[in-house]
Order: sequence, then C-alpha cells, then structure tokens
Amino acid sequence: MAVLRESPLNHSPGFEIVARDPASRARAGIIHTPHGDIPTPCFAPVGTQATVKAVSPRDLQEAGATLILANAYHLAMRPGADLVAQMGGLHNFMGWDGPILTDSGGFQVFSLADLRDINDDGVRFQSHIDGAEHFFSPEHVIHIEEQLGADIIMPLDVCTAYGTDYEQTRIDMERTHRWAERCLTAHTRLGQALYGIVQGGFFADLRAESAEFIADLDFAGYAVGGLSVGEPKGEMWAMLDVTVPRLTDARPRHLLGVGTVDDLIDGTAAGIDTFDCVHPTRIARNSSAMLRSGERLNMRNAQFADDPQPIDLACDCYACRQFSRAYIRHLVKANEILGLHLLTVHNLHTVIGLMRDVRQAIIAGQFADLRTEMQRV
Amino acid sequence: MAVLRESPLNHSPGFEIVARDPASRARAGIIHTPHGDIPTPCFAPVGTQATVKAVSPRDLQEAGATLILANAYHLAMRPGADLVAQMGGLHNFMGWDGPILTDSGGFQVFSLADLRDINDDGVRFQSHIDGAEHFFSPEHVIHIEEQLGADIIMPLDVCTAYGTDYEQTRIDMERTHRWAERCLTAHTRLGQALYGIVQGGFFADLRAESAEFIADLDFAGYAVGGLSVGEPKGEMWAMLDVTVPRLTDARPRHLLGVGTVDDLIDGTAAGIDTFDCVHPTRIARNSSAMLRSGERLNMRNAQFADDPQPIDLACDCYACRQFSRAYIRHLVKANEILGLHLLTVHNLHTVIGLMRDVRQAIIAGQFADLRTEMQRV
Repeated sequence: MAVLRESPLNHSPGFEIVARDPASRARAGIIHTPHGDIPTPCFAPVGTQATVKAVSPRDLQEAGATLILANAYHLAMRPGADLVAQMGGLHNFMGWDGPILTDSGGFQVFSLADLRDINDDGVRFQSHIDGAEHFFSPEHVIHIEEQLGADIIMPLDVCTAYGTDYEQTRIDMERTHRWAERCLTAHTRLGQALYGIVQGGFFADLRAESAEFIADLDFAGYAVGGLSVGEPKGEMWAMLDVTVPRLTDARPRHLLGVGTVDDLIDGTAAGIDTFDCVHPTRIARNSSAMLRSGERLNMRNAQFADDPQPIDLACDCYACRQFSRAYIRHLVKANEILGLHLLTVHNLHTVIGLMRDVRQAIIAGQFADLRTEMQRV
Repeated sequence: MAVLRESPLNHSPGFEIVARDPASRARAGIIHTPHGDIPTPCFAPVGTQATVKAVSPRDLQEAGATLILANAYHLAMRPGADLVAQMGGLHNFMGWDGPILTDSGGFQVFSLADLRDINDDGVRFQSHIDGAEHFFSPEHVIHIEEQLGADIIMPLDVCTAYGTDYEQTRIDMERTHRWAERCLTAHTRLGQALYGIVQGGFFADLRAESAEFIADLDFAGYAVGGLSVGEPKGEMWAMLDVTVPRLTDARPRHLLGVGTVDDLIDGTAAGIDTFDCVHPTRIARNSSAMLRSGERLNMRNAQFADDPQPIDLACDCYACRQFSRAYIRHLVKANEILGLHLLTVHNLHTVIGLMRDVRQAIIAGQFADLRTEMQRV
C-alpha cells in the first residue's frame, strides 16, 4: 500500500507510507526532502547549536542518521540567523547535507531564557547567553527558520508545563493555535515543510481539540508538543492515543523529546514517524551506554575495569569494533574527551540502528514479534 | 648513503639513515619497530593517558601519525600497568597498532605528583589522583614500561628545573647516569628499544659530560631531556649543539617537549629525529589553530565570525576540507566539543605534515631552501 500526498500550499516535500502494522498505529514511510529521503520511523539526533555534541557530521553519517535537529532559538542567539544565512544556510554552515529539522525554540524561550512577557503578539525575553532583550513573534520565528533553511521547521508554540491547570492550558493552547495560523501565513520558503504543533497539556479533551484544529490547517506534518516533560509515562501514551487518530493520516508525525529504546518502540506503535531527543547523546556525556536490549550501563562502574568485551556485542559501531569496556571506563574515569565521543557514537548507532530494524520489521509484518522479543530481553 | 646499526644487546629495532642535509645536522631516516616503521624526522602526538586528547586512533592515522607518546607515570597511576598488561598491552588497550613511545614519567613525578623523597634508590611520591603513596625505582619504572609494552621506552631520570645551580645540576645528572645504567640492566623485553636520556641542565660542560656518558652505554637511541622547560630559546639550541655531536650518530635522537613549527624545523637542523609535545593538541583545546606558516590563529577572535575560508588554505585535513573559520569560531564560542576536536585534528595534520615535508626536503637536498622559505613567510 502506497499513499502519496503532496501539500503544495505548504511547499511540502511529501510523505509516502509504504507499510502499516496491522496490530498498532505503526507505519513505515519515506519523507522526501530537498536534502534526501528520510525513511521512517526514525530517530533524529539533536544538534541544538548546529552540532550534535561530541560527534562530527561524518560520525553522524556513519551512525546512519537521516535527519538531525537544530534549534532556532539557540542559533538566533548565537551565532545569529543572519550570519548562518550569510554562510550559505545551516546545511552549509555545519557541513551536514542531509535533512535538518529546526525546532522553533518555543520550549527554550519558556525554559531557558529569562521570560519577560508573553501576549498574543509573541514573547519578550532575555537571552540566556548575554542577557540581551529579544522579541519573538510567530512571524519572526518563521523568518529565522527560513534564514536557517532547514528542510522541516516548527511554528512558535506555547509550551505548557506539566501540572498546569485546565484554564491556563486552554489559554496556552488557543494561543498556540492562533500562532500556528500566523506561521502558516508567514511561511514562504519553497522546499521547506512547516509542521503544526499539537498542544493541550494532559487534558484529553484539549488534546483532541488541538489535534483537530491543527489537522484542519494545511501543515505538511505534525509535531506533538508538551509531552515527555516530567509526567508519568502512562499519561504520555494516553495523550498520544487521543491525538494521533485525529491527525491527517497521510502526513508525518513527529514526537519531541522521546529517545529511550522502550519509548521509541512504544511511540512507533502509537503512530509516530520521527523522534528526537537529547537523551542518547546527553547520557553518553554522563558516561552511560545504551544497549539494544534497553539496558543502560554506567561505564564508570568498577565492574567494567577489566572487561575486555565491547560495550555491546550486538553493535558494530567504531567504539564497539575497536575498544573494550575497560578502555572506555578508563577514558571516562580520566575525563578524556574520547570517552564522551565514543559513547555518543555508540548510543547514536544504537537508537538509529534500532529504528532501522523497527522499520524493517513493520515492512516485513513482524513489528509485533519485535515488540515481544524486545520486552523479553 | 644508508647506515644500518642494530643494537642486539638492547633489543633495538634498528635505525637507518637515508639522507643527510650537508648544511646542518639534519638527517632523514627510518626507525624500525615491531609495530611498523617511523620515517624521521617526525612529530609524535602526545597521548598521556593512553589517548591523544580529543581525537581517536582513526583520526591519528588520517593525520599521518607514525609514532605517538604515552606516559608511564600517568598510566601506572590510572588505570595501572597491571591492568594494561592484562588487557593485552598498551597498543591493544588503546586501539593503536602503530609505534608507541612511553616516557618514563620522571618529569611528571617531579612536576605533578607530591614529591616526598628522592635518593639513589628512587623517588617516593603521592599520586596526583588519589594521594596514594608510591615508590618508583629505575627498575620498577622499566617493569612498568615492559608491562605497557611500548616500542620505545625511556629510563627514569632526574629532571632538573631551569635555574638550578651547577652543583645541584651535577648531582641530578650523576644520579640520572646511575639510574640509566640500572635501567639498561633491568630491561629484558624483546623488541622494545630503551633510549638513554641526556641531562646536565644549562651548563655546557655538564651536557657534554652527560652526552658522552650516555653515548658510551648501549642504548638504542637517545632523548635530550631537561630542555624546553622555560629557558630562553637560545639556551636550548646551545645545549643541543653541545649534546648532539657527542651522541652515537647511527642511533635516533628524540627531543622531549618541542612542537612549534619553528622549533621543529630548527630542531631538525640541530640533528633531532623525533619530537613530541603537547603544544599542538593543547593550544587546540585553547581555541588556537596552527598554520603551516608558523602563524597561530585564535579562533575566538571576532574577525573570524563571518570568515568563509577554511582554517588554513594550505591544509587538506577534515576540518579544513569541510568547515569554515566562521563555523569553527561558533563552535569554540559555544564551548562545543566538536570545536576542540576539529582544531586538534587540524593542528596535528599541520605539524605531522610539516615534518613529512621536512623529511622529503632533506632527501631531495632542499632542506636549506625549505628553511629559507619558511622564514620568509
């Protein structure tokens, strides 16, 4: 079964669904972008400041990355979107010619910057770097993202913190909706897909309303925002169950901030096509290795001091082909950069490779088997 | 002209001189080791803790490294020489199967550790890592270096600080000589070349005496120690001029702690075959790029903010092939590990490539031209 939906109004590069899992909402697809195809489901490493921390574009290529994230807020603060545009755009600037998605930075404005004022016009805040005052309107953020030139971009949204009450969540959601419409109107860059972001906090009726509102607009794809923000896992799956069926089936769905082995598999089953998260790269810099089984090893532990095995026998990354757990432990104990680098390489291989296998399983009609098998390990 | 001298008593892997510069003491040669040939003159990156900081063995290979250093003191403190031996030796442990030289760590004991006592038996000190008390005798250090299994090893010596008076310098030198003899006696590992270290501070008669003493022993090669320790440059060249002619011509000479473009060229002219220094890798982590011209760029400078050129147009390393100065500046300003990594890759390419060209110039009879040309830039 192949479904091809173009979205010419939104200059969408198009999305194809190539297979579906009969027992869940999982599907395998291909997102076409000007910088290449993104086979889905897939995991996108996060390169907030125009670099995935501790690895090079070459390492990303070797890890099989087909999509990476960057952050419009961070890049607008430093080095500035004008500069990136002057240097030929983000792909050229960072030496990555595969697909890129930029997050609008709404989340960062609300969590990182010193927030001064929010109203329907936009947000006023002070940069977390130099304290300089900035104003982001939906239109301005779209302009920044057009300057950066990513293949997939996100509108400015209002991120509602976990625990926010119903009334405030509704206010935030409705503002997110008005901003979504303004972003669609403001967006002009050809070959760049603008996604819509669903909000609604942890209230099923608001999530449903938000999904329907966003699905009614002509976005090239959808992101589910405001999840994985500290809530019990069950609440995230419940919100996805309300959201996903209301989104236009033939367009890709992105889940922000999810990147553990278990969540990637369950998120795929919930109908998500692309995921991003700092988790695999962040825990690498914190000396932790992810195994394909979902297990996590703290490489500082004494048990690895004389362990001649690779981090993961099931992995064929450079770190696992070339080095022992004993050596990796030595590196992290000695605070050597190579330790962070090798663990980052390994963790990215693990999650990207996992999603490649998940995709193959969906195509082969074996996704249910893979889920069972993974839970057995 | 080819001279081949084996040193069977010392299990030396042998050294060949393939060309000489008629106008200086420079020569081109090949040091044969069980892990491959080292074409000389060459620069050896420093991997103190069994990793050259911020790069992988693969990066070193790409940079053309033919010899790297590690440090017996550091590795004995962490992770321990027993552990490295248990993991199959240093080459296997760190995933580098090219030639390795271990410095004895004398310098580190005197500069880094908390020195408790020094007498003819050896040195008692507290580890800079955990404060544990250790005792290094010349024999113990050789045992450590045999456990590590480098291709070239150094004896324990007494490092005399710059400014030390004549009497103390003589005492240190004579102790270094007695320890040199004990190290030769203690050394048993086949296929491992033990070098002798010349000391004598900044007194020409002591340097001459030390060089003659060390040359009379059956060392596979020589290291000139106690230089580049803060003295005016002229004093270093004066000491080398006294030292080098007194060493057995047919054996390789190593200069510890020298690694700027100018010093590498002048050191080669002074008759040195191999060099090591933390300089290229250390200044990289301090945001500085070395150019082939000898110039040094501080990549944090605002002038590079929108510079689309590579770090060095004359360089073909990954950093220069793929990225602009503007991007490198962004990375270092944003404290991104990739910035340190790319600058380390670049600086190593620069000094290793420089020495490859120096060697070719000697062989082609053009070393004098190269020196003139370099000073003209």
